[in-house]
Amino acid sequence: MKKIVTFGQIMMRLSPPGFSRFVQAHTFDITYAGGEANVGIATAQWGVEAVHVTRFPDHDIGHAAVMYLRKYGLNTSEIRFGGDRIPVYYVENGANARASQVIYDRMNDSFCTLDETEFDWERILKGADWFHFTGITPALSESAANACLKAVQTARKLGVKVSADVNYRKGLWQWGKTPQEIMPALVDHCDLIVCGNSNADDLFGITPKSGDKNSWVSTMKQVMERFPNLKLVLDTKRQSISASHNELKGKAFDGNTYFKTGSHDLHHIVDRIGSGDAFIAAFLFGYDYYKNDVQRTLDFATAAAALKHTVEGDFNLVSIDEVERLATGDTSGKLSR
Amino acid sequence: MKKIVTFGQIMMRLSPPGFSRFVQAHTFDITYAGGEANVGIATAQWGVEAVHVTRFPDHDIGHAAVMYLRKYGLNTSEIRFGGDRIPVYYVENGANARASQVIYDRMNDSFCTLDETEFDWERILKGADWFHFTGITPALSESAANACLKAVQTARKLGVKVSADVNYRKGLWQWGKTPQEIMPALVDHCDLIVCGNSNADDLFGITPKSGDKNSWVSTMKQVMERFPNLKLVLDTKRQSISASHNELKGKAFDGNTYFKTGSHDLHHIVDRIGSGDAFIAAFLFGYDYYKNDVQRTLDFATAAAALKHTVEGDFNLVSIDEVERLATGDTSGKLSR
Amino acid sequence: MKKIVTFGQIMMRLSPPGFSRFVQAHTFDITYAGGEANVGIATAQWGVEAVHVTRFPDHDIGHAAVMYLRKYGLNTSEIRFGGDRIPVYYVENGANARASQVIYDRMNDSFCTLDETEFDWERILKGADWFHFTGITPALSESAANACLKAVQTARKLGVKVSADVNYRKGLWQWGKTPQEIMPALVDHCDLIVCGNSNADDLFGITPKSGDKNSWVSTMKQVMERFPNLKLVLDTKRQSISASHNELKGKAFDGNTYFKTGSHDLHHIVDRIGSGDAFIAAFLFGYDYYKNDVQRTLDFATAAAALKHTVEGDFNLVSIDEVERLATGDTSGKLSR
Amino acid sequence: MKKIVTFGQIMMRLSPPGFSRFVQAHTFDITYAGGEANVGIATAQWGVEAVHVTRFPDHDIGHAAVMYLRKYGLNTSEIRFGGDRIPVYYVENGANARASQVIYDRMNDSFCTLDETEFDWERILKGADWFHFTGITPALSESAANACLKAVQTARKLGVKVSADVNYRKGLWQWGKTPQEIMPALVDHCDLIVCGNSNADDLFGITPKSGDKNSWVSTMKQVMERFPNLKLVLDTKRQSISASHNELKGKAFDGNTYFKTGSHDLHHIVDRIGSGDAFIAAFLFGYDYYKNDVQRTLDFATAAAALKHTVEGDFNLVSIDEVERLATGDTSGKLSR
Amino acid sequence: MKKIVTFGQIMMRLSPPGFSRFVQAHTFDITYAGGEANVGIATAQWGVEAVHVTRFPDHDIGHAAVMYLRKYGLNTSEIRFGGDRIPVYYVENGANARASQVIYDRMNDSFCTLDETEFDWERILKGADWFHFTGITPALSESAANACLKAVQTARKLGVKVSADVNYRKGLWQWGKTPQEIMPALVDHCDLIVCGNSNADDLFGITPKSGDKNSWVSTMKQVMERFPNLKLVLDTKRQSISASHNELKGKAFDGNTYFKTGSHDLHHIVDRIGSGDAFIAAFLFGYDYYKNDVQRTLDFATAAAALKHTVEGDFNLVSIDEVERLATGDTSGKLSR
Amino acid sequence: MKKIVTFGQIMMRLSPPGFSRFVQAHTFDITYAGGEANVGIATAQWGVEAVHVTRFPDHDIGHAAVMYLRKYGLNTSEIRFGGDRIPVYYVENGANARASQVIYDRMNDSFCTLDETEFDWERILKGADWFHFTGITPALSESAANACLKAVQTARKLGVKVSADVNYRKGLWQWGKTPQEIMPALVDHCDLIVCGNSNADDLFGITPKSGDKNSWVSTMKQVMERFPNLKLVLDTKRQSISASHNELKGKAFDGNTYFKTGSHDLHHIVDRIGSGDAFIAAFLFGYDYYKNDVQRTLDFATAAAALKHTVEGDFNLVSIDEVERLATGDTSGKLSR
Repeated sequence: MKKIVTFGQIMMRLSPPGFSRFVQAHTFDITYAGGEANVGIATAQWGVEAVHVTRFPDHDIGHAAVMYLRKYGLNTSEIRFGGDRIPVYYVENGANARASQVIYDRMNDSFCTLDETEFDWERILKGADWFHFTGITPALSESAANACLKAVQTARKLGVKVSADVNYRKGLWQWGKTPQEIMPALVDHCDLIVCGNSNADDLFGITPKSGDKNSWVSTMKQVMERFPNLKLVLDTKRQSISASHNELKGKAFDGNTYFKTGSHDLHHIVDRIGSGDAFIAAFLFGYDYYKNDVQRTLDFATAAAALKHTVEGDFNLVSIDEVERLATGDTSGKLSR
Repeated sequence: MKKIVTFGQIMMRLSPPGFSRFVQAHTFDITYAGGEANVGIATAQWGVEAVHVTRFPDHDIGHAAVMYLRKYGLNTSEIRFGGDRIPVYYVENGANARASQVIYDRMNDSFCTLDETEFDWERILKGADWFHFTGITPALSESAANACLKAVQTARKLGVKVSADVNYRKGLWQWGKTPQEIMPALVDHCDLIVCGNSNADDLFGITPKSGDKNSWVSTMKQVMERFPNLKLVLDTKRQSISASHNELKGKAFDGNTYFKTGSHDLHHIVDRIGSGDAFIAAFLFGYDYYKNDVQRTLDFATAAAALKHTVEGDFNLVSIDEVERLATGDTSGKLSR
Repeated sequence: MKKIVTFGQIMMRLSPPGFSRFVQAHTFDITYAGGEANVGIATAQWGVEAVHVTRFPDHDIGHAAVMYLRKYGLNTSEIRFGGDRIPVYYVENGANARASQVIYDRMNDSFCTLDETEFDWERILKGADWFHFTGITPALSESAANACLKAVQTARKLGVKVSADVNYRKGLWQWGKTPQEIMPALVDHCDLIVCGNSNADDLFGITPKSGDKNSWVSTMKQVMERFPNLKLVLDTKRQSISASHNELKGKAFDGNTYFKTGSHDLHHIVDRIGSGDAFIAAFLFGYDYYKNDVQRTLDFATAAAALKHTVEGDFNLVSIDEVERLATGDTSGKLSR
Repeated sequence: MKKIVTFGQIMMRLSPPGFSRFVQAHTFDITYAGGEANVGIATAQWGVEAVHVTRFPDHDIGHAAVMYLRKYGLNTSEIRFGGDRIPVYYVENGANARASQVIYDRMNDSFCTLDETEFDWERILKGADWFHFTGITPALSESAANACLKAVQTARKLGVKVSADVNYRKGLWQWGKTPQEIMPALVDHCDLIVCGNSNADDLFGITPKSGDKNSWVSTMKQVMERFPNLKLVLDTKRQSISASHNELKGKAFDGNTYFKTGSHDLHHIVDRIGSGDAFIAAFLFGYDYYKNDVQRTLDFATAAAALKHTVEGDFNLVSIDEVERLATGDTSGKLSR
Repeated sequence: MKKIVTFGQIMMRLSPPGFSRFVQAHTFDITYAGGEANVGIATAQWGVEAVHVTRFPDHDIGHAAVMYLRKYGLNTSEIRFGGDRIPVYYVENGANARASQVIYDRMNDSFCTLDETEFDWERILKGADWFHFTGITPALSESAANACLKAVQTARKLGVKVSADVNYRKGLWQWGKTPQEIMPALVDHCDLIVCGNSNADDLFGITPKSGDKNSWVSTMKQVMERFPNLKLVLDTKRQSISASHNELKGKAFDGNTYFKTGSHDLHHIVDRIGSGDAFIAAFLFGYDYYKNDVQRTLDFATAAAALKHTVEGDFNLVSIDEVERLATGDTSGKLSR
Repeated sequence: MKKIVTFGQIMMRLSPPGFSRFVQAHTFDITYAGGEANVGIATAQWGVEAVHVTRFPDHDIGHAAVMYLRKYGLNTSEIRFGGDRIPVYYVENGANARASQVIYDRMNDSFCTLDETEFDWERILKGADWFHFTGITPALSESAANACLKAVQTARKLGVKVSADVNYRKGLWQWGKTPQEIMPALVDHCDLIVCGNSNADDLFGITPKSGDKNSWVSTMKQVMERFPNLKLVLDTKRQSISASHNELKGKAFDGNTYFKTGSHDLHHIVDRIGSGDAFIAAFLFGYDYYKNDVQRTLDFATAAAALKHTVEGDFNLVSIDEVERLATGDTSGKLSR
């Protein structure tokens, strides 16, 4: 993969240090992240040109966000400036039986109020292998949904493959249309999506056929029939033993074959956020890197998602080598000198 | 003074440590403040019951704000919960020729979207000596302006004195009415305001009479004629030699006499924000404490404002004794064991 | 429960950050806590009016302590000022086989030197549901012991229920009398105590009857016979696998029935201190909340104690909802957005 | 100015926080900087494409350096990887009569051991307005000196203007040749240099003519005769009243006219390092921006150098607007909302 | 000077970071210091063997104190262990007109409760040039006063010179005797003291003779007559313009000649504590170093005291070279590379 | 054991806080350590006189290193000053499947460039029980190897026992000779070494005899035959389940008997570095303490190594009591008050 284009809102992430609860915090650690940019940045660590398209206010906090993304390798040249505010989300780190908490303050920001005509998708997408978005982007505002539709249409026209994490969040979608009205037209242009059973039900009204042994495969078969451009659907399965200890597996379906990985034992979780983005990023990267070998790619992607839990912040700052070692079974974490 | 009631928006204040610029910051120091609450808290340090009326979202960041205010002595029992967001302002600390910077993100928050019927002003104001607001409150939204008007009307009815910092900020006032339409009705109920010449011009169209020797007195005389409930008008005069070094004087006019203080030399400014609130708070407190002696009160209030520049955050966390020592000329800052 | 009154010493808690040993520390994190205030604060999070009675030096560190307690919702209006020093305890956080360490410097402080006449217990206890103390309070000084006796006597007179964590610490009790001389008169007024077998032996000379199957129940039966006002005795059982990993169960006895909970698996302990206080606080709260259903209350209290291990500092800053989720078996700690 | 190319070593800068002495430090703040890169980054803030050419070890600290530079807008695409170590300099912040201290550990690093053939100067310099280096680059190693010579020769060939801060540091120059042997050939290609009288004497043996009124002009006249490509020579004059308080002026000579600025009063110095780089960066930028008006450019450059003293780290992270305000006499540092 | 022995209490110093007030502090910076140890440590930086005699509790905080002192070069082999507590003092950093504040919690600690027989002064003082104490040591407890008397008697017997900072603090001296009863016997053995006019009055009832032009010289002449072992008396004169800005001069009297220094302008004070200890330490060191040249020694000592204001904590961590540069008039604080 | 002498390089250790990756770090925590000094310091905690011999640059960073070592009880009087640089190693803390990483920058430092004649081994080793070095010392430079040889020869001559951790690191050994040429002559003088099978193969070409049941014993038997001065060989066996979870056992062979310990379960690893040094230090100490009882000593040493994983930094800052508790089976980590 040479180039990926991602499109979506970037928020300032404010987290109390360590295991401090919000009400105890005197300082916040500052990062900036967003589901789509997280995907771009993960691939940028591995040499891909990752162009992220978004919109920030034209003040020093907006500039700080750009500089943060640039540091981690994102091509920020297509970021537009305008609007009033940078959105914020607050992340409190849980432990054992106490869950991590996220509070969002993301509406009416510079991304939500973007002007759908301000992005020249033909130029932006030129030469890209993939365009990636999530179900959050069209949920935020009408102009965001419209811009997203233009992007996927242009991608299809230019032969750029499209991937999406359909990611339905009920609390969003306040701008007038329902996800059921908007998402199908977007997924229609997708080559690959991350989708679980509940998303399929919520967004497309598709449920497993009774009698089918594997309910996810049953559902995804129908999803792929409904959206014939889809070549692959992916998902992860997380078992939450406690906030500090999860287990994670990956799965994929290509219309015929069901692929799955072994289970990663995630003790000592450092940061719970962003593993889904790490998964899709590594899948898109690995699918090319492993020459369309779905099983190896899925192993790689799931290992990447597992490693994400050891990195502070949303971004998956790990090397190809670190992921491959875990993907091929080395969980030892032996000191490297 | 036994009890003061203040009404206004509280924002989360996020500041990079030390002299770090926004684009360099990795952490923010968290405080919560607002012009009116700053006044309440300054007086609460000196034993006054200070009730602040505002509205926060009903989530852990909203609760954190309440707990922060409660720590510093505010009576938070009249705070209401509702709405979606806590407003934020970002403060960058300047030095020498580099100015301090403030970026606001305060619109559409839980205060702006308050329901003007949710405050029972009769109960809230009962037994209060003063009700205080600033020109920012009515600027934020229609319901805030309406609630403020009800508050001042109720105060007048109950014999509670009203003070205001008229504080015109052009960038606000986006909800449909102009300050010229709204502010006069509010100031009409005031006993005391902080007002400078440019405010008088912007808000009331009042300018100094040519020929009058002291232009501020000339203007304020007309302001007091226009608003006959006014007993006193106040102002401070700041000379900004650099971001690290200011000079500050106070002045007052009671319709007849013009009072002023000597100049405070503010080297080594620790925090530039909140000195205006410290000034009015100390004036309201001192006016009672010094049995209506305007000159002593003005000296006390200006010393309080001067000391505020040595305290981190918006709040004036100083003792009566510290203020009196400075007000009576001891600038030595001698080590106290 | 509407109101609880607690009485006891508050210390400044100084802890090196993270897993730093005392000799490595360059900074201390500052909190303020005490067994009884911890109980008050836990209930204050859940809407109870929690009045804590103590005594601090009248200087800025004493005031800082008051402000800290007020932040977390304690009613501090009955705190008295006097004496010379604020007591200190130093807490070093252990890991795996290295134990956490506490060093106390609590004698001769403002609480130990209180004047037993300075608290008007009739006024303080008016309208309270519970008065709570621990065995540490009478251990500290003669005047503290006398004040505690007056408090429990007044409580009984006013129909305020009394609870105590009998908590025998041999190293204290240096003021002349033994706990065996003092504690019985205090427990005599109690409706509920937390007491283990070794405490019963040390303080009251009561040991299990040989032949009784459950030695704790055997002992507590005798304790309840000796102190006929007691309606309930409680205890927790902790299995320490390592400093980072404990198991915890709760038990209760009402004179007839023995209640117990399942075991909480406490991996990844964030803070080891204060879980006993969290337990009794949640029991007092839950007993009313669950309308005297001992089993549900015990499940709730033990879950609260378990969650305490995930919160930095002594205070149990968790919501009713968080406790109930764990009490009813959800240990998943799933990310909450 | 559209594009600038800079060439030189980048070091990790490790500074104790605040005014801590080295022997007291428990943590270091990490930045990365170098005289030439500082110039590039200052101009990158103002929209210039700034390409920095250097060499880092191919490990995570080397990558961290690249990411740091990229954050601040440098084009890092011409950085090469190889060699063993990243150089370090330690900076201790002085105050009042106690001087700031710098300790260098910069030899034998990846830059010193560069291979002079690994930079394709024709491609790198294409389209550049300026190439900039300092006298430190050729001092570090033979291959660095050779690469620098190739760069200036290529620049001249391509019509790219060359600037240099001649900056003689006696402690360096350990690789075999003296600066007197190397520097003249480099300066021979320069259009503009920063040079003081002592540098002129040390490097070129040029001293003021006795009888000339202005000794710097006298010297620079001779320097410009010796190096006829020079169009401008610049210098700053610093008066060090204390480590916290300096005065700074700028001067320039174009062969005919002597330009100078007023004096900037630098109280409350935040960071003493990098003002010389800020000066030359702003001069190169301003010379184009002000259409070759030397006086305005010099005022702008000196104001930029003055503002640098208020910014932590080596980089001059200030806006054009901030510099212009100071350059045109506004030293007030008034709060900007 | 080869060896100095100092005797006195060491306290843990807890300071909020930056300019935070006590009530705002979430963390304390930890150091350990005491007037006499400060003297020892200042000389240890310059190669003197500095033995400090004190007593700590035998727990990890006591050991941390020892390790802290050892780091800064103190010979800690004569420190004894016993008693219960380490004393604490809290230091709040003032700015401009807001004074720095110190709150002490030093009574009943391991030093106050020392056993006067546990120090073998003959062995400890062997080979020492100076024994140094302050007026605080005998103020703390009877056994401390007795031990101090034994120390000075032994010193005199062994020919070890004795110096004292008489330093009268009224709030101390609670153990039964007055300073007027105790101090004369101690000063009687001194060769050199630091003493101001108010100390002379408070402790010895000596006041300037009316008519004498220089009141300090007048007083000290009488002091030297009263205590004929005294060879030199010293003092500093501080002018406190603000908490951030002081002026400092030194003076000395040898019975005949009055010596004084120019005034040091102390802008930008970093840490106000310990300059008196820095002064006496540098005097004792310099008196030998400059072969009894009182003027040069006084210049050196006053420069050392001036530099102390730039160093965080109580200790004067400066080099001989830094002090000499300032003592001979170089106040420039020029960057040292 | 009364006295131990250790010889080796000390590096500055720079670690990002918490689980931050290198590329995310804004600050480094600073410690100073080295394999041999770690051994000295561990024993110094337990009252042994530990003299460490090394060489630092004569500047404030070099002095800071000395002060750091002195704090932790090392006798630093034999440290020499000279050379240019202090070496650095960067440590990134791993978690779960992500390994910890170390990057070294240790060549050409003041230790590597030592002059082998500058250490007076006869004086230094006088009265020592043990001299200890590691295989890293001779790997660094020719003069280091020569000095090490002189040290072991002198030790043997003086009857000082010699221990070594043979510790072969392939990446070092760049000065011209191979470890196979150098190490045998050094080990020849050793009484005790830490050696694993791969070291035996790499350094001495010794491999287990086929047919021998225990391959380590088989190898070590041959090693002891080859180096007849050896009385004991030791090793640890680490099972790395993840970066956060290891298991550790100790083993020893005295030529006849094979000793081993049970397995320590190291969950929640705080710091992975230095456990090998903790092991040998505790063995040398315990061998004397337990009067040559190898099994008890091995249990003690392995428990010490296990506890090291709970302490930040390289040094094993644990008490004898803490080690003995674990060595005798108490893994509970119960809160110690």
